[in-house]
Amino acid sequence: MANITKKVSWSSRDDDLAQGEGTALLNGATGAARYTRQFSGGSIFRIGRLSTVDLEEEITAEEEAILSRPKEIPHNEKLLSLKYESLDYDNSENQLFLEEEKRMSYMGFRCLEINRWVVCGLIGFLTGLIACFIDIVVENLAGVKYQLVKQNIEKFTEVGGLSISLILWALLNSVFVMVGSVIVAFFEPIAAGSGIPQIKCYLNGVKIPRVVRLKTLVVKVCGVICSVVGGLAVGKEGPMIHSGAVVAAGVSQGRSTSLKRDFKIFEYFRRDTEKRDFVSAGAAAGVSAAFGAPVGGVLFSLEEGASFWNQMLTWRIFFASMISTFTLNFFLSIYHKKPGDLSNPGLINFGRFESDSVAYNLYEIPIFIGMGALGGVLGALFNVLNYWLTIFRIRYIHRPCLQVMEAMLVAAVTATVSFAMIYFSNDCQPLVEDQAEEYPLQLFCADGEYNSMASAFFNTPERSVRSLFHNTPGSYNPLTLGMFTLSYFFLACWTYGLTVSAGVFIPSLLIGAAWGRLFGILLATITSSGSIWADPGKYALIGAAAQLGGIVRMTLSLTVIMVEATGNVTYGLPIMLVLMTAKIVGDYFVEGLYDIHIKLQSVPFLHWEAPATSHSLTAREVMSSPVTSFNRIEKVGTIVDVLSNTSTNHNGFPVVNEYIDNTEPGKLCGLILRSQLIVLLKHKVFVERARSCLNQRKLQLKDFRDAYPRFPPIQSIHVSQDERECMMDLTEFMNPTPYTVPQETSLPRVFKLFRALGLRHLVVVDNENRVVGLVTRKDLARYHLGKHGLEELQLAQT
Amino acid sequence: MANITKKVSWSSRDDDLAQGEGTALLNGATGAARYTRQFSGGSIFRIGRLSTVDLEEEITAEEEAILSRPKEIPHNEKLLSLKYESLDYDNSENQLFLEEEKRMSYMGFRCLEINRWVVCGLIGFLTGLIACFIDIVVENLAGVKYQLVKQNIEKFTEVGGLSISLILWALLNSVFVMVGSVIVAFFEPIAAGSGIPQIKCYLNGVKIPRVVRLKTLVVKVCGVICSVVGGLAVGKEGPMIHSGAVVAAGVSQGRSTSLKRDFKIFEYFRRDTEKRDFVSAGAAAGVSAAFGAPVGGVLFSLEEGASFWNQMLTWRIFFASMISTFTLNFFLSIYHKKPGDLSNPGLINFGRFESDSVAYNLYEIPIFIGMGALGGVLGALFNVLNYWLTIFRIRYIHRPCLQVMEAMLVAAVTATVSFAMIYFSNDCQPLVEDQAEEYPLQLFCADGEYNSMASAFFNTPERSVRSLFHNTPGSYNPLTLGMFTLSYFFLACWTYGLTVSAGVFIPSLLIGAAWGRLFGILLATITSSGSIWADPGKYALIGAAAQLGGIVRMTLSLTVIMVEATGNVTYGLPIMLVLMTAKIVGDYFVEGLYDIHIKLQSVPFLHWEAPATSHSLTAREVMSSPVTSFNRIEKVGTIVDVLSNTSTNHNGFPVVNEYIDNTEPGKLCGLILRSQLIVLLKHKVFVERARSCLNQRKLQLKDFRDAYPRFPPIQSIHVSQDERECMMDLTEFMNPTPYTVPQETSLPRVFKLFRALGLRHLVVVDNENRVVGLVTRKDLARYHLGKHGLEELQLAQT
Repeated sequence: MANITKKVSWSSRDDDLAQGEGTALLNGATGAARYTRQFSGGSIFRIGRLSTVDLEEEITAEEEAILSRPKEIPHNEKLLSLKYESLDYDNSENQLFLEEEKRMSYMGFRCLEINRWVVCGLIGFLTGLIACFIDIVVENLAGVKYQLVKQNIEKFTEVGGLSISLILWALLNSVFVMVGSVIVAFFEPIAAGSGIPQIKCYLNGVKIPRVVRLKTLVVKVCGVICSVVGGLAVGKEGPMIHSGAVVAAGVSQGRSTSLKRDFKIFEYFRRDTEKRDFVSAGAAAGVSAAFGAPVGGVLFSLEEGASFWNQMLTWRIFFASMISTFTLNFFLSIYHKKPGDLSNPGLINFGRFESDSVAYNLYEIPIFIGMGALGGVLGALFNVLNYWLTIFRIRYIHRPCLQVMEAMLVAAVTATVSFAMIYFSNDCQPLVEDQAEEYPLQLFCADGEYNSMASAFFNTPERSVRSLFHNTPGSYNPLTLGMFTLSYFFLACWTYGLTVSAGVFIPSLLIGAAWGRLFGILLATITSSGSIWADPGKYALIGAAAQLGGIVRMTLSLTVIMVEATGNVTYGLPIMLVLMTAKIVGDYFVEGLYDIHIKLQSVPFLHWEAPATSHSLTAREVMSSPVTSFNRIEKVGTIVDVLSNTSTNHNGFPVVNEYIDNTEPGKLCGLILRSQLIVLLKHKVFVERARSCLNQRKLQLKDFRDAYPRFPPIQSIHVSQDERECMMDLTEFMNPTPYTVPQETSLPRVFKLFRALGLRHLVVVDNENRVVGLVTRKDLARYHLGKHGLEELQLAQT
Repeated sequence: MANITKKVSWSSRDDDLAQGEGTALLNGATGAARYTRQFSGGSIFRIGRLSTVDLEEEITAEEEAILSRPKEIPHNEKLLSLKYESLDYDNSENQLFLEEEKRMSYMGFRCLEINRWVVCGLIGFLTGLIACFIDIVVENLAGVKYQLVKQNIEKFTEVGGLSISLILWALLNSVFVMVGSVIVAFFEPIAAGSGIPQIKCYLNGVKIPRVVRLKTLVVKVCGVICSVVGGLAVGKEGPMIHSGAVVAAGVSQGRSTSLKRDFKIFEYFRRDTEKRDFVSAGAAAGVSAAFGAPVGGVLFSLEEGASFWNQMLTWRIFFASMISTFTLNFFLSIYHKKPGDLSNPGLINFGRFESDSVAYNLYEIPIFIGMGALGGVLGALFNVLNYWLTIFRIRYIHRPCLQVMEAMLVAAVTATVSFAMIYFSNDCQPLVEDQAEEYPLQLFCADGEYNSMASAFFNTPERSVRSLFHNTPGSYNPLTLGMFTLSYFFLACWTYGLTVSAGVFIPSLLIGAAWGRLFGILLATITSSGSIWADPGKYALIGAAAQLGGIVRMTLSLTVIMVEATGNVTYGLPIMLVLMTAKIVGDYFVEGLYDIHIKLQSVPFLHWEAPATSHSLTAREVMSSPVTSFNRIEKVGTIVDVLSNTSTNHNGFPVVNEYIDNTEPGKLCGLILRSQLIVLLKHKVFVERARSCLNQRKLQLKDFRDAYPRFPPIQSIHVSQDERECMMDLTEFMNPTPYTVPQETSLPRVFKLFRALGLRHLVVVDNENRVVGLVTRKDLARYHLGKHGLEELQLAQT
């Protein structure tokens, strides 16, 4: 028996949901459909329609308490926000659509398919170009910066006055970070962070506002350049995934709403189903460009996004990924003046692990698993700290200028900590010609030596990772590595969640590589059993995998990404084992970093399956009811009123056959979306019944596509008093065959249908095919397994 | 507008389908529900219920014509067999099931989840062991055989009388192949071939009889050993996939019906949903063991089987794959007396491609793509030849002894051709110490030299592939390679489809490697531009990928398999490009080899999407109607009669509420399966209404699980005349919430729902929720895109 432990009652101003009876809604502006739930001893009773006054008052009081709170992002992961809409992965197969499909010849479908491949090729190409651009700009700016600081340090090392160098460094960093932070905080806050949680949500089917707009892309790209050059403990890889997704959403639509350009191509793709598929391809192309991992990219998209696996789609995603890594590689090879040399497939390059020198042995496997467990623990610690920090940020640092100031502070602190570390370190290593550091700092070391701590701090993080993997044994002493791990761990944790565009992959890898290398050195010291332990680079790699796995908790895709980035399959098995261990251990403590941030945003995220113990719930308990329905031929006034009702911002409405007097639910005959109604109203598709009803012209599918995806709000559409008396025939525009379930269907069954087909609205009908309720995303996302069994999240407006 | 070009009319003795009205069925033994379709000018009219006599007679005549034909496997890929049942990937969520789920605590579900992991671990372990066993036995037997023949050849090379050696060789081969063929042909014909088409079908949701039985596994393992040792142009990799699947189906059930042992464990997993998931894991473990490619294995399972992608499931599959390759590696390392050396992760090992020596360059990419196209053409040729051969075999070689004789003939011919090739070849190469051949044949070469043709023929195919990849440039002369390619191509083509257990992966790789190497040598000769062309091993690899891709047409999974088997990610991009080109070019001519064989078996295989131009069809046209339905409380006699009716072997029956006088369709209230009814009848779960109705005991879910999956036939259940008068209450046992669609739903929409959820029966209802039809697998698989647009396949009994 499932235990429902939360006692909740809330106002249901549902965003994505038709709810509240039609008439009830029209009565007043505050007429939100309200209901409450009482949980007594594990079973659920719902009071379907509220008639008792006291109940209503009780809710109103609570509601006011909610409304009186200051408007801030909910900082409670036990809330589910109602502000997010769902994507419609299920086509609305209305008459217009079916007519178009029937008109299309086989060749037409072939052309469409070819178009899809062309779009995927373009997505890959552009994503690769963007990655290339970011890489080149970052390289050059960082080069200038490090040269400047280096010269300055060298100048003052002899004469004293290194504090000037510190100030110069800190200032340079802060300026870059400020620019990056300002554009994010003031122009496009959605571009903050790595964007991976947002893309995860988008692929899951949640429409995150503004996440795939051109402006977001521009801010993201500039922001990530600034934050990497600004020396923050961040990577440029995560944002590539977001960039790829934006490119995909833009290219596939054949127009830019922001730039007001319509190229009149790819019009067929202007709907959520197609767009979401392309966005998967874009995300994969992003991963592919970031890590040189096309297969890993495909798996990432599937692991994060897909529900229904389609072979053709997968191949297209694969194609986009391939083109993306190839483009990057090609242009970088030209830039590096070695055209045709395809050895730089990604932004990050782990360098070549020659298999002979770093082969592993059977008895090392338990050690690797142990490292995985350690990575899981450290990852969980990272996540918990970041969680608290994020809560703090949500509460106290939600004004843009404060956010910019925090980012600048972190930049300055990062520079200071780095400087102090380098300054107080006395780990001098002889200069070797072919090592990875580009800017060796001599500092107080003898001639021909460099400061080893500086090779970790005074470098872009990608280079630091590579030098940790590949520098010869003995390049770092244990103390250096320990100090570096400790300081970088906290810096990275502080940095993630700042209002800058930045990813967490590279910092995680860097932390892991540092403690992994330390681990390897210590192991060699303890056992001193010869050459097999001699290469700490191997342990750095395993440590990097463990730490990254412990933080982000991906397994399959991450394994492949790591293997592809390493360029060596030999390490496949240990990396897998390590990532799995890290995930299992980490999950014991806390969720993955991305999931934490998704929860903190109160996104109605659908997991893979309904909670295990939810078989006791049925559609009847889960659904929202009563439902606002329309008649097949409905009065324009009624429609306008329902749509205008700000308290019930419903997006989907069942269409019923006989809906007489609103006394008894009608028989379901279709489903129509708010967006469709808006287009109908805009084009005044009214039936002549009364005096002056215009029946202008036959509406085309094109009209709907032109309005997609930014349908105008109902307020922008003027309907005259005369027109209000007209009727509207919805038959042609509604989806005549919406998916339905009977009331007795268990929650897991409803969930499976909803998730597998990517639905937005699922109509619940009774034995007579009458509409009794509607299930939307938030109705399903609400249930989750907590510590005490099945719990229900509260719904909130913010 | 869709064009339906086939004019068909057929008898609908449907296997998997409830069809024909209840009463009509009970009237007579021959009372199969019959209907016909008329296609006039592209649109479809269905004459719902036959009343006109002439129509009926017309069909009966045709039907008799069909029945009078000799019983043979249909050799027309335009047929769809009705003998295959579907798997129920959708749980029957009846009251019993829901009660059990509700009783289970959260810990119970955790235990189940742990059990799933344990089962997957076991599957991986056992699959690895089997692979290990096959490998060791084959190595030893082949070693003995080749030593024997080699000694014999060496003995007679000087003195003359090499024909004795030939006879010895041919005889040894034939004996091995005879044994292998006899056990397959006489004991378990389903074990023939690689088993990949069968597993594809199983994962697609088709229950292929006897495909996952213990006996099949035993025959498969012995058969594959015999055919590889017998020197046929086959590999032992494909059968591993089948073996893995059988292991999975066995282990996950916790009992063996064949051995009559029930371990009373994993009882929860005794249903199609769980079993199919485990079989995916088993197939992946098989791939993983065969190629040392755990990620490739996962992708194979997903590409071939999955419709709904579930992250947890994927991880379990991944785990099974990992364990499998690890087990194989571990035991092989012990066998090779190098414990702990994990460098043999699979049955086939492509050897190490050191990246420096065989780096590729940008301008080689077009060449690779050209090779991909060539591979596509050659693959298509292979498939076409094999298709004709298979048709010939179906028509003329369908008696077991003929099949054994053919297999022996092929074995003898293979030996003869090999011998002749070696004999007439004068390609002598100096013996180098560290090359891959284990049995260098000196033959007529000078001392210290060996016959190069022999290193390709006088070897297990795996070794030959490896030597083609890695032998130093100049090891083979072009003529040798050309002759080898030509002869091996036809031998392999002739061999695939023989009644032996054997795979086509390795022969394809071998053919491709040979012509690839030849291509590389020729290229070097033409251009003679230095060291970059110097290594033909690179071209051998690309050729192998192209040929294999051209034959089997997998892309994503095959790329990963190849990359993992090569152990070098550098070749990822060219391999991808080559495989894609090979697929595109090959698909232009003919389908993939596995798909051809699936079609020739007339399996109702569901592809990823409905045909593009099928939007004009709706559920009304697609569904089978009228439907045999039961009342919620039904007379036992009626049920027994319906189930016993041999002419309508239906497996699913809608349960309706008011089914009065059979005059009007009742309101749907559930769906019950034949297997459930059988169990009910067996346990005599009758309601007392008449005199002597026993209501023995409350039926448990366990009773259903115990009977799974081999439910007794209705004939084995005795129901007395008194009992026939009793009633049976189906309420508790039926699935009360079957998925339904309205009649107007378009075919693609029906298809998507059916495919995404892995359904077996989909009820079509009208506006009043009355049952009007039933859609099953064959109703959907029937439509495909032919050359002239949408075509319909005929249904056949065989």
